[in-house]
Amino acid sequence: MGNLTPERLSRYRGLEREFGREGLINLNPIQRGGILTPEARRALLEFGDGYSVCDWCPPRTPRLDRIKRPPLAEFMEDLAEFLHLEVARVVTRCREGKFIAFSSLASPGDCVVVDALAHYSTYLAAELARVKVREVPHSGPPEFRISPEAYGEVMERVRRETGRPPSVVLLTHVDPFYGNLAPAEEVGKLCREQGVPFLLNAAYTAGVMPVDGKKLGADVLVGSGHKSWAASAPTGILALGGGVAERVLRRSEMKGDVSGRSFPEKETALLGCTVMGAPLATLMASFPHVVERVKGWEEEVRKTRYLVKELERIEGTRQLGEKPKRHTLVQVESEGFYRISREHRRRGFFLYEELRERGIVGIQPGLTRHFKLNTYGLKWEEIKLVAESFLEIARRHGLAVT
Amino acid sequence: MGNLTPERLSRYRGLEREFGREGLINLNPIQRGGILTPEARRALLEFGDGYSVCDWCPPRTPRLDRIKRPPLAEFMEDLAEFLHLEVARVVTRCREGKFIAFSSLASPGDCVVVDALAHYSTYLAAELARVKVREVPHSGPPEFRISPEAYGEVMERVRRETGRPPSVVLLTHVDPFYGNLAPAEEVGKLCREQGVPFLLNAAYTAGVMPVDGKKLGADVLVGSGHKSWAASAPTGILALGGGVAERVLRRSEMKGDVSGRSFPEKETALLGCTVMGAPLATLMASFPHVVERVKGWEEEVRKTRYLVKELERIEGTRQLGEKPKRHTLVQVESEGFYRISREHRRRGFFLYEELRERGIVGIQPGLTRHFKLNTYGLKWEEIKLVAESFLEIARRHGLAVT
Repeated sequence: MGNLTPERLSRYRGLEREFGREGLINLNPIQRGGILTPEARRALLEFGDGYSVCDWCPPRTPRLDRIKRPPLAEFMEDLAEFLHLEVARVVTRCREGKFIAFSSLASPGDCVVVDALAHYSTYLAAELARVKVREVPHSGPPEFRISPEAYGEVMERVRRETGRPPSVVLLTHVDPFYGNLAPAEEVGKLCREQGVPFLLNAAYTAGVMPVDGKKLGADVLVGSGHKSWAASAPTGILALGGGVAERVLRRSEMKGDVSGRSFPEKETALLGCTVMGAPLATLMASFPHVVERVKGWEEEVRKTRYLVKELERIEGTRQLGEKPKRHTLVQVESEGFYRISREHRRRGFFLYEELRERGIVGIQPGLTRHFKLNTYGLKWEEIKLVAESFLEIARRHGLAVT
Repeated sequence: MGNLTPERLSRYRGLEREFGREGLINLNPIQRGGILTPEARRALLEFGDGYSVCDWCPPRTPRLDRIKRPPLAEFMEDLAEFLHLEVARVVTRCREGKFIAFSSLASPGDCVVVDALAHYSTYLAAELARVKVREVPHSGPPEFRISPEAYGEVMERVRRETGRPPSVVLLTHVDPFYGNLAPAEEVGKLCREQGVPFLLNAAYTAGVMPVDGKKLGADVLVGSGHKSWAASAPTGILALGGGVAERVLRRSEMKGDVSGRSFPEKETALLGCTVMGAPLATLMASFPHVVERVKGWEEEVRKTRYLVKELERIEGTRQLGEKPKRHTLVQVESEGFYRISREHRRRGFFLYEELRERGIVGIQPGLTRHFKLNTYGLKWEEIKLVAESFLEIARRHGLAVT
């Protein structure tokens, strides 16, 4: 502690977020759906203090999802209804939801099946649950599609190798690399036919676009409040169909060998309670807005397609992933910008820096050949500014623009 | 979704925290140490949006603890130093820290030893990690002390029964029932002698009082940002000694069987990243204040002892747990108030209601015979107001006050 001088501690004073400034257009793929509503910002201050939502926790059955002031109990019900599933809980992160599902529905050593475009945290969740992962390959460049047939084949292979179907099948509804919308309904049907629990990772879909868990056949749907529900991190959504809810939300069977203490009301995999404060308040406060905003999804996709069309006017530039786009997350491949970067004194950073000069951030600094962006929630005028900026930068460096 | 009408959704508009009002004295045992500093409130707004701290995540080794803007990497180092341990991470909850420790240091089926006053989440964390719990008994009423000798006996019993020492020994530094300060240093010594990892649950100590993890012999120290570090929920502290850090923070060894993807930089038990936004910002913003405030711990205890002395003037009323108090969490037993409650038309609620009329909340409504409170951070004038209020209520109902 001798080193924790006031001087050194001064670095925590006046913490500022450079990209929080008004007027900046942030294209960061993970950040577009997590921008707070004004209501959520108010809720943050109201429920900022520690265990702020616990003032009225029912003493006899203390549990987050049973609190009625603020209306947490009702919110969990409304969440489930919004996602067309039976039961919902708020957990700390989407990845925690995946871990909870894997560890509840599979035993250590079991096989689970995931798409090869799954988020890295899917693999870690499986590893922590001590289950083996079998991947479903995608179709490769340029579209990187995931097919139900490929799912069927991998499920069949697991059955041949282990003598039984996989314990869980996970599909990434929209993947973090290309923003492809996967064939969830078809994979869900396959799972139902084979009696395998279907886990849909809706981190990039639920909260920004309409998601009907029942129609898609999801037994478990996980989502991310900070990614797609206009909420602060960390917040995850865990929504369950009736067939698995009891297993996933099993109650504690632990009993103290001396004290005799037991906790039969507590949900083991949730470790009792999860998000006891501010981020949950933001999730609730933004919920009316989220229910409304998913109705505008088609317009969001139109904006993305417009931007893609404009970017593809640049020499050597194309959108990767499925065409036409059905999601706002885009991966761009640009041999053109890459060529410039090889001769530029700022190397690949020129693109980031020239965008930045135009008030646009969120493209990973240094990247030119492949980079990702997300247009979700940008106004048309902002989309046009982004498109024009890219075209201007291209022209400035001598790339042809059709 | 048919039912998610604007009317129904209106319950999420204008969310307010009744107990957030200025001037109210809140004695809720879990809430005193989690009240935000003004700096933390500013940080909340600055970093409210989703993945707000991830703007400058290093692309090649993306991980929360490596981000330098805001200074997360430095913060983890300062946290470890503050707790006199080698490495620190911020996790989503203290209970997640316990689960991470149990699941990293013990294998399914192993025995872990915990004190019989452990927080309920300790048992759930063990259950989720599939380990068996052996409890160390306390001394019973009125002091409910935990002794190093009792630890030694239970550790010895585990050794006799299973042929080897327990995989982890956990001690609750200050328990949530009586606010007793447990003999951590002695239990730590015992663990070191027997080569057993010592897990100290410092949820009620680190952040409010000085805690020297090294001196106490902690291999793992877990804490709670929302309970004791003036931070928003959910935030947990996981601090580690050199002997176990590598095991607890082991890197992912998963490899995709088709894609070949691997994640050797990611810490498996943390599922990669943990608190990617607002609550972490509050924890950092409050840190300079926390470093300072632990120096005032003795004065905090003096205030508690004063209040206890005043409350014990009431007929049939005594403080439970160790005497004199060494922590600000207090359990009160009052046969006097209990007798009143049996004849009062509002039953046990009279006490809550009459305190409330005096601007005091946080005592669990309905309780009189045994209730808990926490004085941490109250000013002397507030302590005196609380004391006078209890005495007034006692007199009003005919209880003798010495």
